[in-house]
Amino acid sequence: MTALLSCRWQSARLVKRAVPTVTRSLHHHIDTLSLAELLGATNLRKRTPEDYKVLREIYTSFERYNAVGNDIQLTLKERTANEMIMCEKKREYEKGIMDPTKFAPGYHIFEVLHKVQESPLFQMLQKMPKGGALKLIDSSISSLDWVIKVTYRENLWVCTTNNGCHIEEFRFSKEKPKDSDSKDGEWQTMAQLREYRGEENLKKYLLTRLSMYPLTSFTTNDHAWQHLMGIFYLLQGLLRYAGVWGDYFYNALKEFYADGVQYIELRSLIPSLYCLDGSRLPARVAVEIYRDTLRQFKEENPGFIGCKLIYANLRHVEPNVVAQYVKECTELNKEFPGFVIGFDLVGQEDKEHPLSRYVPELLKLPDHIDFYFHAGQTNWYGSHVDENLIDAILLGAKRISHGYTITKHPILMNLAKYMNIAFEVCPVSNQVLQLGSDYRNHPAATLIAENVPMVISSANPALWRAKPLSHDFYMAFLGIAPMNADLKFLKRTAKNSLRFSSLKDEGKAKGMLKWKKEWDEWVDLIVEGKLMVDEKGSSKKENTPKTSK
Amino acid sequence: MTALLSCRWQSARLVKRAVPTVTRSLHHHIDTLSLAELLGATNLRKRTPEDYKVLREIYTSFERYNAVGNDIQLTLKERTANEMIMCEKKREYEKGIMDPTKFAPGYHIFEVLHKVQESPLFQMLQKMPKGGALKLIDSSISSLDWVIKVTYRENLWVCTTNNGCHIEEFRFSKEKPKDSDSKDGEWQTMAQLREYRGEENLKKYLLTRLSMYPLTSFTTNDHAWQHLMGIFYLLQGLLRYAGVWGDYFYNALKEFYADGVQYIELRSLIPSLYCLDGSRLPARVAVEIYRDTLRQFKEENPGFIGCKLIYANLRHVEPNVVAQYVKECTELNKEFPGFVIGFDLVGQEDKEHPLSRYVPELLKLPDHIDFYFHAGQTNWYGSHVDENLIDAILLGAKRISHGYTITKHPILMNLAKYMNIAFEVCPVSNQVLQLGSDYRNHPAATLIAENVPMVISSANPALWRAKPLSHDFYMAFLGIAPMNADLKFLKRTAKNSLRFSSLKDEGKAKGMLKWKKEWDEWVDLIVEGKLMVDEKGSSKKENTPKTSK
Repeated sequence: MTALLSCRWQSARLVKRAVPTVTRSLHHHIDTLSLAELLGATNLRKRTPEDYKVLREIYTSFERYNAVGNDIQLTLKERTANEMIMCEKKREYEKGIMDPTKFAPGYHIFEVLHKVQESPLFQMLQKMPKGGALKLIDSSISSLDWVIKVTYRENLWVCTTNNGCHIEEFRFSKEKPKDSDSKDGEWQTMAQLREYRGEENLKKYLLTRLSMYPLTSFTTNDHAWQHLMGIFYLLQGLLRYAGVWGDYFYNALKEFYADGVQYIELRSLIPSLYCLDGSRLPARVAVEIYRDTLRQFKEENPGFIGCKLIYANLRHVEPNVVAQYVKECTELNKEFPGFVIGFDLVGQEDKEHPLSRYVPELLKLPDHIDFYFHAGQTNWYGSHVDENLIDAILLGAKRISHGYTITKHPILMNLAKYMNIAFEVCPVSNQVLQLGSDYRNHPAATLIAENVPMVISSANPALWRAKPLSHDFYMAFLGIAPMNADLKFLKRTAKNSLRFSSLKDEGKAKGMLKWKKEWDEWVDLIVEGKLMVDEKGSSKKENTPKTSK
Repeated sequence: MTALLSCRWQSARLVKRAVPTVTRSLHHHIDTLSLAELLGATNLRKRTPEDYKVLREIYTSFERYNAVGNDIQLTLKERTANEMIMCEKKREYEKGIMDPTKFAPGYHIFEVLHKVQESPLFQMLQKMPKGGALKLIDSSISSLDWVIKVTYRENLWVCTTNNGCHIEEFRFSKEKPKDSDSKDGEWQTMAQLREYRGEENLKKYLLTRLSMYPLTSFTTNDHAWQHLMGIFYLLQGLLRYAGVWGDYFYNALKEFYADGVQYIELRSLIPSLYCLDGSRLPARVAVEIYRDTLRQFKEENPGFIGCKLIYANLRHVEPNVVAQYVKECTELNKEFPGFVIGFDLVGQEDKEHPLSRYVPELLKLPDHIDFYFHAGQTNWYGSHVDENLIDAILLGAKRISHGYTITKHPILMNLAKYMNIAFEVCPVSNQVLQLGSDYRNHPAATLIAENVPMVISSANPALWRAKPLSHDFYMAFLGIAPMNADLKFLKRTAKNSLRFSSLKDEGKAKGMLKWKKEWDEWVDLIVEGKLMVDEKGSSKKENTPKTSK
């Protein structure tokens, strides 16, 4: 009780101390004042048209100075490439302004996915070395076409209900499994089910069952989450089998690299994998397989920079479970010090517990392991989900996943900027999970205008059948950024993805060199007009197979 | 040429002078720095849970301090009323969080219009004295039910195509009109058409033809505008008849006052009205009729504060026409000095000319007549429409209509705050004109968080069959503002509508007294539980008839 009182008293004292500072700072926006002084602001009406022109020029130079990419100096060759890119971007813009039904970022990705892939601008962006994808969930990054191939492997059983119409669970097993979470489920081999339902028919079913398609399958953020969690549940049986775990990861690396991504950071539950006989392996094995697979992939693809893991377990638990998470993450970090580098909590934020509930447990994480919190993935302003953003930042996160609600917290946004906390913006994910509909209204536009640290990522691209990162880049570049955002914006955004990664100084420097090499090659290809062909035509990396999608 | 060079040189010099200021100001956010210092920011991870609690408390007090309404002190009675209002608000929130399909601000107004009217929160807000509605277009403010009654008046002719199925034009005339803008149109009396199509059928047709309903009638901002302009065109024939002009305005005043609005500012084209014999009256007559009607209404309703006119003509014209507008506005202001008080340009911003094109002409407006520009009513970031916002603010506007794109221009937003330029936020209009779909993503949330001057208005409520101002207030309070925004927010917003009006000091003081009287009565009614009945039940103003809607 005394401790509580003392804490309250201390708090009151600090709040009191804070008030004059706040008064001073909030009501005297020094930058605005300076600008206003410069403009001679008190009466803007008393001007000649010539004066006005000067005034406007000063203002627009302020804006330019402030936005993402202003610091980039393009080379002569890059300037030529820029002209070619901007020519395509302007073409899409002008078409859209003439007839808004032709502007892809005004629509849901499901409606325009294939149309976008035909766009010359998209094709340029797809080949662009985009640096790193820093916000990915490890079980939703290999294309569904590849996942469906896995269902042809030996020893795969499937539990169905409704006379085989609904798949409840997958499991690799020597014998027919006896238990299932589904009460009325019946087990049969995948081969039997394929025979029964017909190969093409079953493939079509799986493409829907394992994705967020069709558009009509949900209408609110809440429904979307239920749907999403259902997919993850179903994927578990396939991907957590020790014999698939590494292959899935290897294929994801391949697909991402082919899409211009040289580095990734994965959120993973780091599960206990299972074997054919039903036995379980310790969590560390999952990490080990990732590490060895990565090593192999890097040997085969020297241009690839690397991958790091963020330990990310489910958030809807009691504090003592979070304490367990913290312990497990610390141990994994000890065993894989350069590989398991961060901590997060995942799952729908709206449900149950706010981040603030776990503060004492979270603060026990050694501070060389960074926080990379999911936070503010909502449009319920003032809700506990919205407030998670406050805790994520005050807890000193290195990056924030989504932070969709950040523009509703201007002080917090400035604080994040000051402390170099980057936002992982995932445009397509936000749309599919029903936070917003039109990309032109995405809050990241404000981050771009304010030059708040941000990176573009794709979260679960496989679940919306999108390319690993290109669709998100396309929507950000065409739909979210301003019309005049150009190669400088793209270059800064790509570079930021390494800058705000968890790579240490030396790794960052090496990574930047690898990126720069591919970037220069890409600029050459653009300038030489070699990226202006249709999708099936060119491929910049001959020794890395293209994605199978 | 010399002049141009000298101007360029001056500009270059000024820009050069600006750079160090910008560098200093943009990279040293003093407020953030102070906050960070206070937090001891460099490593937020090294904290005890108790320290963290204090830190979080300081931060949230910063946020509270900064938001709209923080300066309001509630009386004891208001606090009781606040609890009752917040109880209803929380009920709607909780229902929505449990099941988002039940949360009205997540939907299009057309889908939830009637459901909203049944909400106890809406009923409280409807009776609330909301102060002024500062952004209204004068030809879309009387309910359609009333407008349809006008079509029963004598001497009304109607020009139709498609065998009477499509109405092209209305006209009051002694004789059958000879001319029409519609090539194949045929004139008949309204009575004949009513006989031919059936009364109920025609009424239904008009309710659609004169409104933006149904939801499916357009899918882009561009289509919505075409539809809107079509309605305005059709209304002209009805409302610009000298015998209807004053009645329409009188009815609008009645409906607004019944909806808790005591003051309005109207954008008007101030047209030349026509008479039964087809002759035209000078524009000044339209103003005169407004003035006399207002005088009569104020005599009958001493609680009503008043109305002012903003001269607002169409923007898609050559600069010399804008010069004509400026001249006409100046003359009207000379004749009606306290009544015609401002200038604006209206119509779809996307089409054709930006504001910057008219700078020399606009600067000729005497500076006692204020600018109230429509600007930034778009989500095309970086387009000329988006840039209109820069010009509107740098030209020294007193208020900005919409400014939907303002959060993409943080420096401009701070400048507007510093110079007390208020944004006229019209939530429902923005949705119907397809700028955004979910109220929870409306950019005004940032204005609220930053305490940027703003007022809530309704633009053209009749065209979406909404109440004069209540639906906009409901969506703003429940959908845009944070969960904890309460009576302090409502009171500040109502007061701001008078504070940022064009009323002069004395008028403002008098107006505030009239508002305060009704506000106190409303608080009494809330506290006494008299507003908890269904819509048809209570009416606070016995001598002002309720709206006929």
